[in-house]
Amino acid sequence: MITSLFGIKYPIIQAGMIWCSGWKLASTVSNSGGLGLIGAGSMYPEVLEEHIRKCKAATNKPFGVNVPLLYPDTEDLIQIIIREEVPVVFTSAGNPAKYTSRLKAAGVLVVHVIANQKFARKAEEAGVDAIVAEGFEAGGHNGIEETTTMTLIPLIKQSVNIPVIAAGGIATGCQMLAALALGADGVQIGSRFVAATESSAHKAFKQAIITAGDGATMLSLKQLIPVRLLKNAFYDQVKAAELAGADPDVLKKILGRARAKKGMFEGDLKEGELEIGQVAALIREEKPAAEIITDLLTEFNEARKKLSQEQYNF
Amino acid sequence: MITSLFGIKYPIIQAGMIWCSGWKLASTVSNSGGLGLIGAGSMYPEVLEEHIRKCKAATNKPFGVNVPLLYPDTEDLIQIIIREEVPVVFTSAGNPAKYTSRLKAAGVLVVHVIANQKFARKAEEAGVDAIVAEGFEAGGHNGIEETTTMTLIPLIKQSVNIPVIAAGGIATGCQMLAALALGADGVQIGSRFVAATESSAHKAFKQAIITAGDGATMLSLKQLIPVRLLKNAFYDQVKAAELAGADPDVLKKILGRARAKKGMFEGDLKEGELEIGQVAALIREEKPAAEIITDLLTEFNEARKKLSQEQYNF
Repeated sequence: MITSLFGIKYPIIQAGMIWCSGWKLASTVSNSGGLGLIGAGSMYPEVLEEHIRKCKAATNKPFGVNVPLLYPDTEDLIQIIIREEVPVVFTSAGNPAKYTSRLKAAGVLVVHVIANQKFARKAEEAGVDAIVAEGFEAGGHNGIEETTTMTLIPLIKQSVNIPVIAAGGIATGCQMLAALALGADGVQIGSRFVAATESSAHKAFKQAIITAGDGATMLSLKQLIPVRLLKNAFYDQVKAAELAGADPDVLKKILGRARAKKGMFEGDLKEGELEIGQVAALIREEKPAAEIITDLLTEFNEARKKLSQEQYNF
Repeated sequence: MITSLFGIKYPIIQAGMIWCSGWKLASTVSNSGGLGLIGAGSMYPEVLEEHIRKCKAATNKPFGVNVPLLYPDTEDLIQIIIREEVPVVFTSAGNPAKYTSRLKAAGVLVVHVIANQKFARKAEEAGVDAIVAEGFEAGGHNGIEETTTMTLIPLIKQSVNIPVIAAGGIATGCQMLAALALGADGVQIGSRFVAATESSAHKAFKQAIITAGDGATMLSLKQLIPVRLLKNAFYDQVKAAELAGADPDVLKKILGRARAKKGMFEGDLKEGELEIGQVAALIREEKPAAEIITDLLTEFNEARKKLSQEQYNF
């Protein structure tokens, strides 16, 4: 189980998400027994520094930072993380060989996010402490193989010897139980925490998640970096272009700049990019993060008790 | 649990699959304590009749027929099923209101395959006895919402009061346990049984499944009926056309006729249509169906025992 590695109570990691997971959400989750992550992907170095300091002031429990290895600022972010003695870093969307040994030498635990067998093995070779295996149903950036959590977790468990954290399709306690049944050593939960009270997602975005039904999201922009989006006017525009055979350059132009901020942080539900997982269909209300964790554990225990019944003796 | 409804020992249904599941596979699964289904989608009425008779001769246990409600022969197939007193029918890809009451009046149990909330409710209204909720990762025909099993099962359980059978992403006992953890009342397993000794899939197709890795399949032909295919030359042709903005008529022309037979039954791995689920990546050998069921139960029991350990007490 992932709890002893991180020094946390429950094997629940709150995903580091751009525009949604700052110090408030991360520290609340850590104070509630999970591992809260600050999402650095949307932060300038000085903003990240501020969030780390506030997070340290708000909790004496372990917390982490998620760093997508995509942006020009990465080196600065890594330096701040080391200087501020952040206990855990989750890296994603890049080569784990680049920063892992430096982070580990500085005493930082390193976890890398992957979506296929090949990168799981590469991450293990790079020396990371654990991996997140993220299924197709997850919100935001995603793998090109489109492997879902049901298939990905057993496959990755067979492929590496380090702990595997399941991500994608987990918003309730029964889904958490399912992930552990598949062999995961812990779960990373994103979308459910986007709709937490402490999330910095715009109120309109949270409301859109709460009213989303099945089929409300779609993996999109596959010719750039696949990303799961809540369907809206912007998504419709991308889809129409894709059906007409648009090439990556055309799609880049449609995407433009700062769309994720516009959608998730500023609440422009038409023209903004709204990254969320399929589990949006199961999210019905905004709640404090501590209550979300209590709910997860209650549901988990109920589902686990049910599975222990005699009718499942085969 | 689905066992009492069907009068079977284990909540395991072997999916009715075109070109793969004839009387041999179905009767073996039924004799092993599951529910075997004959896949009528690839059968002329007189062929189905022969398979039903041979299945009845080979087992005195309940078995069923899967009928995709897509083809002009459907009326004839339904008449044969009623005349031959087949105990269970799984209908898919069509309106469940059309045949359910007639089948039920004749004493046939009816199960309908769905991939979203709306059709789950419609099937319940039509009076079916249970539904199969099929996730995005499943092989063959699939829903347009692309909802994966992890999200679909809890969602559908909330939406209907009849039993829900999970399909998609299930080839091992830990995946079966995960499906039941999600709330499913049973599981339908397709791909794993395509590679059973008793499956009528061509040897070359079975071998292609056994060597498939992650990312080897893709949901394709979304503008016609979405179908999950093993990637091959035919898939590449479809994909290139789609990326170039081909319309449905062009795709229909590329698909042509009898491609599924060519691929799955005749073993043309280049030009044939090869329908298989993402779990192909977990399938490593051809095995007798009875052993597959034994494996599933052994793995299920191990995974269930693991989940009952103290470390999962939260």
